[in-house]
Amino acid sequence: MSRNILLISTSTTHGTGYLEHAEGEIKNLLQGKSRLLFIPYARPDSVSHKDYTAKVREAFEKWGISVTGVHEAKDPVAAVKEAEAVFIGGGNTFLLLRQLYQNNLIKPLQERVKQGTPYMGTSAGSNVAGKTIGTTNDMPIVFPKSFEALQLVPFNLNPHYQDPEPGSTHMGETRETRIKEFHTHNTQPVVGLREGSMLHISGDRITLKGSLTARVFLQGQKPQEFKPEDDINFLLEAV
Amino acid sequence: MSRNILLISTSTTHGTGYLEHAEGEIKNLLQGKSRLLFIPYARPDSVSHKDYTAKVREAFEKWGISVTGVHEAKDPVAAVKEAEAVFIGGGNTFLLLRQLYQNNLIKPLQERVKQGTPYMGTSAGSNVAGKTIGTTNDMPIVFPKSFEALQLVPFNLNPHYQDPEPGSTHMGETRETRIKEFHTHNTQPVVGLREGSMLHISGDRITLKGSLTARVFLQGQKPQEFKPEDDINFLLEAV
Repeated sequence: MSRNILLISTSTTHGTGYLEHAEGEIKNLLQGKSRLLFIPYARPDSVSHKDYTAKVREAFEKWGISVTGVHEAKDPVAAVKEAEAVFIGGGNTFLLLRQLYQNNLIKPLQERVKQGTPYMGTSAGSNVAGKTIGTTNDMPIVFPKSFEALQLVPFNLNPHYQDPEPGSTHMGETRETRIKEFHTHNTQPVVGLREGSMLHISGDRITLKGSLTARVFLQGQKPQEFKPEDDINFLLEAV
Repeated sequence: MSRNILLISTSTTHGTGYLEHAEGEIKNLLQGKSRLLFIPYARPDSVSHKDYTAKVREAFEKWGISVTGVHEAKDPVAAVKEAEAVFIGGGNTFLLLRQLYQNNLIKPLQERVKQGTPYMGTSAGSNVAGKTIGTTNDMPIVFPKSFEALQLVPFNLNPHYQDPEPGSTHMGETRETRIKEFHTHNTQPVVGLREGSMLHISGDRITLKGSLTARVFLQGQKPQEFKPEDDINFLLEAV
């Protein structure tokens, strides 16, 4: 497979600007490309598609890449089919997935990525690249027709992964407990991606980027921590 | 309406035993009743229906109330129709709602509660008493056929409500941001119920119980804090 995918935990880490911490990896992903199709459907903080796209455009123009918002296209399916590269930004995962279904973009996106069109996602845009959105942290503010996502990779993502806070008096579930509950009804691996971390998938090779370890949850097993230099290719063989 | 409903944020507050902090309100809700039907579908920490019911049974037997788990009944619908009182416990809201639909319990529960059968819920069991489960904090580990819930009250609940942490470096959305995003696609009020808080609905009167204030979110308005002695009956008039 010729896929070329970058799944980023968060667009903005504490103390850095928008996409700044991922600049090197993004440039690597998009080398040789001059145009990027941005999908703003997740609308963080209820920002408009237009304003969200303007923010993204500003970031990429500095790097010599021009940005079109998919909402600007008369025919979003055609826009995906013609895209040189695709970026799905963060926000609400349920809203994002519903819009992807409503605009019939699931299959065209899958096909483009299979053909090698670079794909990058941040937060919700990383969630929808997984098998399902069943490990999103977001509130279910709208009802999508399915939780099945783009399935660009055969596992699930949990962006903004948080470790349990020592000494917390809060009785709500920890992130780890939630993922454990997910595995009582689902078999695919889940990658807990801490803020600042990324996964780069190039063909049949997957690499963890950033300085932190990632927490990998396999059904019925103890969670494991993997360092950026570790071999995590088993994730691509999950079924 | 003769409804008699107790919606509890969390079954267990920090430093107290199971349901202990709500003992007075629970006894008040169930006065004159000797039997309780427990619905364990939400299965916190993947505990079995049997073990979850055993835990609940132990708590209520001390108070002279006998507990039957709905999973013990050959006909769950008949069990609801004959129940003296109903308790839906916490866990995963998506799993709970899916099981309520699969066992055809939505309408029977609505009818019993309208007729005055006491209903109590904790956490996920409070979520499903609202208009939709659109403001749950849980992971969408299974796909229910709808997010529409029991609608015993015309608003939504957010149990385990958490205020933003001052000085946090985490970039994921705060609870308040999430609820604000909910209101870009939904009109009903949302009650953020902090741990230790409860709502008691008796006929057309609603009262906040516990020592803390509750945060109420109305679409397009600034969130408001209400104290236990405040008049919050407007919540029952929401459409």
